[in-house]
Amino acid sequence: MLTPRTEHLIDLALEEDAGLGDITSRAIFPSAHRSRATVVAKQSLTLCGIAVAARVFARVSPDLKTKPLARDGDRLAPGAAVLRVEGPTLALLTAERTALNFIQRLSGVATQAARYAAAVRGTGVRIVDTRKTTPGWRALEKYAVRCGGAGNHRSSLGELVLIKDNHIAAAGSLTKAVRLCRESAPHGTRIEVEAKTAAEVREACRAGADIILLDNMTPAQVRAAVATIAGCAQVEVSGGVTFATLTDYALPGVDLISIGALTHSAPAVDLSLEVEPIRRRR
Amino acid sequence: MLTPRTEHLIDLALEEDAGLGDITSRAIFPSAHRSRATVVAKQSLTLCGIAVAARVFARVSPDLKTKPLARDGDRLAPGAAVLRVEGPTLALLTAERTALNFIQRLSGVATQAARYAAAVRGTGVRIVDTRKTTPGWRALEKYAVRCGGAGNHRSSLGELVLIKDNHIAAAGSLTKAVRLCRESAPHGTRIEVEAKTAAEVREACRAGADIILLDNMTPAQVRAAVATIAGCAQVEVSGGVTFATLTDYALPGVDLISIGALTHSAPAVDLSLEVEPIRRRR
Amino acid sequence: MLTPRTEHLIDLALEEDAGLGDITSRAIFPSAHRSRATVVAKQSLTLCGIAVAARVFARVSPDLKTKPLARDGDRLAPGAAVLRVEGPTLALLTAERTALNFIQRLSGVATQAARYAAAVRGTGVRIVDTRKTTPGWRALEKYAVRCGGAGNHRSSLGELVLIKDNHIAAAGSLTKAVRLCRESAPHGTRIEVEAKTAAEVREACRAGADIILLDNMTPAQVRAAVATIAGCAQVEVSGGVTFATLTDYALPGVDLISIGALTHSAPAVDLSLEVEPIRRRR
Amino acid sequence: MLTPRTEHLIDLALEEDAGLGDITSRAIFPSAHRSRATVVAKQSLTLCGIAVAARVFARVSPDLKTKPLARDGDRLAPGAAVLRVEGPTLALLTAERTALNFIQRLSGVATQAARYAAAVRGTGVRIVDTRKTTPGWRALEKYAVRCGGAGNHRSSLGELVLIKDNHIAAAGSLTKAVRLCRESAPHGTRIEVEAKTAAEVREACRAGADIILLDNMTPAQVRAAVATIAGCAQVEVSGGVTFATLTDYALPGVDLISIGALTHSAPAVDLSLEVEPIRRRR
Amino acid sequence: MLTPRTEHLIDLALEEDAGLGDITSRAIFPSAHRSRATVVAKQSLTLCGIAVAARVFARVSPDLKTKPLARDGDRLAPGAAVLRVEGPTLALLTAERTALNFIQRLSGVATQAARYAAAVRGTGVRIVDTRKTTPGWRALEKYAVRCGGAGNHRSSLGELVLIKDNHIAAAGSLTKAVRLCRESAPHGTRIEVEAKTAAEVREACRAGADIILLDNMTPAQVRAAVATIAGCAQVEVSGGVTFATLTDYALPGVDLISIGALTHSAPAVDLSLEVEPIRRRR
Amino acid sequence: MLTPRTEHLIDLALEEDAGLGDITSRAIFPSAHRSRATVVAKQSLTLCGIAVAARVFARVSPDLKTKPLARDGDRLAPGAAVLRVEGPTLALLTAERTALNFIQRLSGVATQAARYAAAVRGTGVRIVDTRKTTPGWRALEKYAVRCGGAGNHRSSLGELVLIKDNHIAAAGSLTKAVRLCRESAPHGTRIEVEAKTAAEVREACRAGADIILLDNMTPAQVRAAVATIAGCAQVEVSGGVTFATLTDYALPGVDLISIGALTHSAPAVDLSLEVEPIRRRR
Repeated sequence: MLTPRTEHLIDLALEEDAGLGDITSRAIFPSAHRSRATVVAKQSLTLCGIAVAARVFARVSPDLKTKPLARDGDRLAPGAAVLRVEGPTLALLTAERTALNFIQRLSGVATQAARYAAAVRGTGVRIVDTRKTTPGWRALEKYAVRCGGAGNHRSSLGELVLIKDNHIAAAGSLTKAVRLCRESAPHGTRIEVEAKTAAEVREACRAGADIILLDNMTPAQVRAAVATIAGCAQVEVSGGVTFATLTDYALPGVDLISIGALTHSAPAVDLSLEVEPIRRRR
Repeated sequence: MLTPRTEHLIDLALEEDAGLGDITSRAIFPSAHRSRATVVAKQSLTLCGIAVAARVFARVSPDLKTKPLARDGDRLAPGAAVLRVEGPTLALLTAERTALNFIQRLSGVATQAARYAAAVRGTGVRIVDTRKTTPGWRALEKYAVRCGGAGNHRSSLGELVLIKDNHIAAAGSLTKAVRLCRESAPHGTRIEVEAKTAAEVREACRAGADIILLDNMTPAQVRAAVATIAGCAQVEVSGGVTFATLTDYALPGVDLISIGALTHSAPAVDLSLEVEPIRRRR
Repeated sequence: MLTPRTEHLIDLALEEDAGLGDITSRAIFPSAHRSRATVVAKQSLTLCGIAVAARVFARVSPDLKTKPLARDGDRLAPGAAVLRVEGPTLALLTAERTALNFIQRLSGVATQAARYAAAVRGTGVRIVDTRKTTPGWRALEKYAVRCGGAGNHRSSLGELVLIKDNHIAAAGSLTKAVRLCRESAPHGTRIEVEAKTAAEVREACRAGADIILLDNMTPAQVRAAVATIAGCAQVEVSGGVTFATLTDYALPGVDLISIGALTHSAPAVDLSLEVEPIRRRR
Repeated sequence: MLTPRTEHLIDLALEEDAGLGDITSRAIFPSAHRSRATVVAKQSLTLCGIAVAARVFARVSPDLKTKPLARDGDRLAPGAAVLRVEGPTLALLTAERTALNFIQRLSGVATQAARYAAAVRGTGVRIVDTRKTTPGWRALEKYAVRCGGAGNHRSSLGELVLIKDNHIAAAGSLTKAVRLCRESAPHGTRIEVEAKTAAEVREACRAGADIILLDNMTPAQVRAAVATIAGCAQVEVSGGVTFATLTDYALPGVDLISIGALTHSAPAVDLSLEVEPIRRRR
Repeated sequence: MLTPRTEHLIDLALEEDAGLGDITSRAIFPSAHRSRATVVAKQSLTLCGIAVAARVFARVSPDLKTKPLARDGDRLAPGAAVLRVEGPTLALLTAERTALNFIQRLSGVATQAARYAAAVRGTGVRIVDTRKTTPGWRALEKYAVRCGGAGNHRSSLGELVLIKDNHIAAAGSLTKAVRLCRESAPHGTRIEVEAKTAAEVREACRAGADIILLDNMTPAQVRAAVATIAGCAQVEVSGGVTFATLTDYALPGVDLISIGALTHSAPAVDLSLEVEPIRRRR
Repeated sequence: MLTPRTEHLIDLALEEDAGLGDITSRAIFPSAHRSRATVVAKQSLTLCGIAVAARVFARVSPDLKTKPLARDGDRLAPGAAVLRVEGPTLALLTAERTALNFIQRLSGVATQAARYAAAVRGTGVRIVDTRKTTPGWRALEKYAVRCGGAGNHRSSLGELVLIKDNHIAAAGSLTKAVRLCRESAPHGTRIEVEAKTAAEVREACRAGADIILLDNMTPAQVRAAVATIAGCAQVEVSGGVTFATLTDYALPGVDLISIGALTHSAPAVDLSLEVEPIRRRR
């Protein structure tokens, strides 16, 4: 998970918080002062970001040693210990906020994803994310979604064809748009078509779409569309689905419901770092 | 606002979404196809991020010309136009999601900040943010907080002394901690002390703290602490304040209430890009 | 095409060639000396990289003005003019080699791709590239392959499932490997399976592979495999196909032949920059 | 050899191939699954890039341990083992293609250089490279040339004066161009002059050129030029020399023959990674 | 101290000096040749930069092992040993100049700061730096100033309000400028006002400035200003103070004297690396 | 001069000073407020860095328009105008310090170089710099040295062979060291040998050194060495030469004197930015 880009994001984050050092801790802790600390969950949550947080501590000082006490994807109760850190106190406090900021955001996304995924469990529907992610965080947030038990929609504009109304208008027809994409896209790429009406659903089927996105439909319209599609393509429901209406859309024949809020509106979870000094033996 | 770091974040975001190009639009739009588009608010919101979004379009292609239709900090109603873009359709659609992702997050923070700021208007209390920001986004999110009419707490560990219980324990006493920081911190730096009890509040006053942070106190405890402080220091309330309890804490004598949720749990606002092709004249 | 990563590669290239300036030209050309120059093809070639080369000149000096005289994907004869540049001679000569190095390599890939694509024209087979690209150049080389009229295989490990023998061994069987990937990969992702034997081909069909890669087979084995597959999956031939044997493999029912040499062994094309000074009028 | 720039190129390469992870291997290999693998030569080759490949594996995971089985510059027969890797299978397969892409290209250049160098062995001529390198790869490719037993021409525009016809025209004469460069270039810098005619060769000698580049001459013209120069300068032959005509130019008195194809048109060598799972003892 | 930015500066420095390798040492030292070396002070100095120099050696090769023999902030006599390095000679000599360049500059700043700080010792005045630092080196040079026993003025434009005449003119009056800043700056930020006349000093006091900067005043003017201020604000003297006039300004009531020359005109200190080969035991 | 690396250094510098914005100016200047400003020399100086400073202003805002009023290399008297800037006041003040920091350091180096160069004018000796430059600033400082009328020694370890006592000891003899380097270094590379004694001078001549560096000799020793060398190599004097002793070493037959202090100990020159608001016409 620690790709070069993630390490880069860690560097940006450390520089913005700790580039000038911690003027409070520097005044107080002698360099030999050491502490032991534990990241602790303050609420129920689905964990994500242990390796990133561990890397933040190591990046501030190789003398900070970490030990994971839980794993990404674990459901934790309030009070659960997440990560142990030990080493020079000045370095530990310098890294604290940045490490927590990563883990609280990623676990926030994982927890949100787990909540949505749980709501449709047993229905055969898969909750998936969207490209509405925090700029710079695409791969990390998509990883957090998986940790929460939901799935990933396409990761970039280069990965899956998704034909929308602008494309259809420019191509002349939905059918022509599908054909143009089939000819030019890589052979390994599926083709998804956004359909807003029953007529578009029918045309998408005939044009050979691999996936049909039912956009902003009522549950009744979705039900009708599923009947039309009749297995000729995967069915994705998208647009205007909230947590409250989620189960209304988790209908037989629906394969996927995509939810932007998994990534763009997941509240952070509450975690804290509990620190205690290490007494020297005599 | 477009510091080198912001431009850097734009580059990371474009690379992750559009580094391989838009395989759908590339199949359909000839390079001469041009469109005109408008970013439109789909809900009430406080705007933030116009210049970043405009830069995203320009970064994808210098042929994309943008014109702002509103300003950062504006309160907008649903349907309000935010930004006009015009140019090659392929470039426009390649930039779309990244531009929207920036503006929906920054406006989300601004809107959240505005909501909290409005709730305490007239009480003399200022809502401020914390360092619980999205890693890599510190300066941008703090700017969004200001656009929403709230204020900024310290931007980094190097900017303000903030003495917490770990520091007090290591220094031997709150008073000693303040003295150590006064001696070593830059002369331009204020000193804030976190106090959890009435005794700590009294000691912080005597030690000459510039700001006293009342941590996780009830409104009644805050009222008592304010009476003790009696103007000798600024008073900040922090910890456990939610939107529901906000007004309970907006008491006379309280200068600041700091809210992590301004940045770490602000839901994105809803915006869309409405695109129409430009017909060539004959 | 000029993504942030491409601009980054341009910067690396300019720094390595011209970071210390051009000590020869600096000794000779006064800063007011201006020239006009033309990039010219010295052999038959398929062009690729015009925009990158133009950006190299602009990056060295905004006073260097370029004008394309041909377009990416054009087949050019020896002597054809490709790009016009005009401006300060010192800047022009400083940029020359870097600009040519980009265009000669990208056109080399495009020309190689065009040669392979031409050889199978009319057979229904599509030549595609592989992930055997120059590190740092993935997106650029895949663009060059498209300019040459061939297609792109997957761009990264995250874009298409490709099950090889190691995966099959670890999963226990080909069928189990397909099922594991179907469950965990994004729904928009196709599944390709490498098959070395007729038995594997049959199992891949039954397991529901979207694409079957026939690895290192003879033309006769490919013919047999195509008969087995009988349209249930796309057919890719890979491994050990050279330009000499290419047409032996371009059999009915084969959809794709993938060729690493398109990118890893394409010889550079020969281009030069013809420079003439601009005489001042009196 | 692992300069910051090389590490940077490794990061770019890993990001483009593995930034989203390996969706196939992730579905199949549990995190505890470990393998042992060997990079093996599939053809005769001169090796280059062992340290870069080893670094690629380490960058993906510090748990991947590598052990070199050969050294840069070694001539290897088909089947020779090059590098051993051992560790988590998921990390190993994630790094595989990137590691091979580096080593196959660098060894390709080394092998090409060795082939040219062997052809002139015993003649007193040294084969050298040019600045026609892959953008971003200058230092790496020049290292590969040395591994192949050939030599390096200048590495950048700032390292050696090389006076061409444009410079001569602007200076007024070859002699004036040499004088201008002598006055302004660093004292540690040699001066090379490109000569296309016998007259230019004579003038270059008289002007005190340290090296004379005989550009696009026939072997007979080279022989005559060598007689004129008579040891007053080093003699470089350049332009239009192919492998077929190489020995025609390896004449007595010629010091250097520079060959752009060493770097710009070296075919990749064939290597593979042979992987076997590590069985756990009971 | 080794923030990501410092590591970045180390990379830039190594690339510019050693990106092409050390052609001299590479010709002479076999890869197995090892040496032991010591960085030695050649003059009296206050040390700064040990960790940076150690990191330079480690960055060139993890086989170079360093051991600090003194600590940042130590006053050293000529001949004092500073840092021990041991490992491959080629790597050691490749890193030498870059490591020394860091330590000689940082120790130069520390030594300059120590000289100024010593001159005012016992007067109650603190010598502080300015923002006149070497671009890219802000945090490092401010650290060096602290190592020398002087203090830091603001680190950036975002850290302390400093109102100058342009601000006063635009605001309409000094008092209005202070009020505008008080309203908009973070609550943790002090407000400093530059005063050139006795009237401005009086107005700054009344406006509630936290710090008053007496700009380009004579010692007599400073004395009068101090009397006016009478403890209502901290007093900083700035502008035109040289080492020769320093003690004239170290008057009772003056808190700070800021000196740009600490960072912008500190001469480098003289250090050398003494290298001896390690003989192999038999 | 504005290579990618220089632009990178500008970005680092702006981020460290202005990454959080200018909290003072932001409180006071409305966004429509515009000013006109002039960079003015406050002392005699040799100018360097106009283009860098202009780029700093443009980087902060494209609305800041600059116009150079002098050229790099010009000798300026106190009060001379250097650069005009006009545009939004907030942007102008945000860029001010960074722009001045570049120009004051580069002009400091140029002024120092000019002072040393003037001292030996007419003697035939050329003053040159060393590799003792500020890390990250190599190319910029070497440019500043040229602006001051002095010359450049090698820019990196890869550009010129320089054989010192460690190399001689490891090679077995000075003669062997020269031979090893001659065989392995690029043909375009000169070979310099450091000599500390008359015997070494003689051996260096016989070994065919192109340049002989006389290290830490007295003027009398230099005179003797020059007689020995008798024109067979260039003569460089280095080590322990100060401005006071410079002319003692500027002896007939000495070609170069290298001075580390040109770059590592050049005091900054004094410049200021004089700003006046632009009144709107009515």
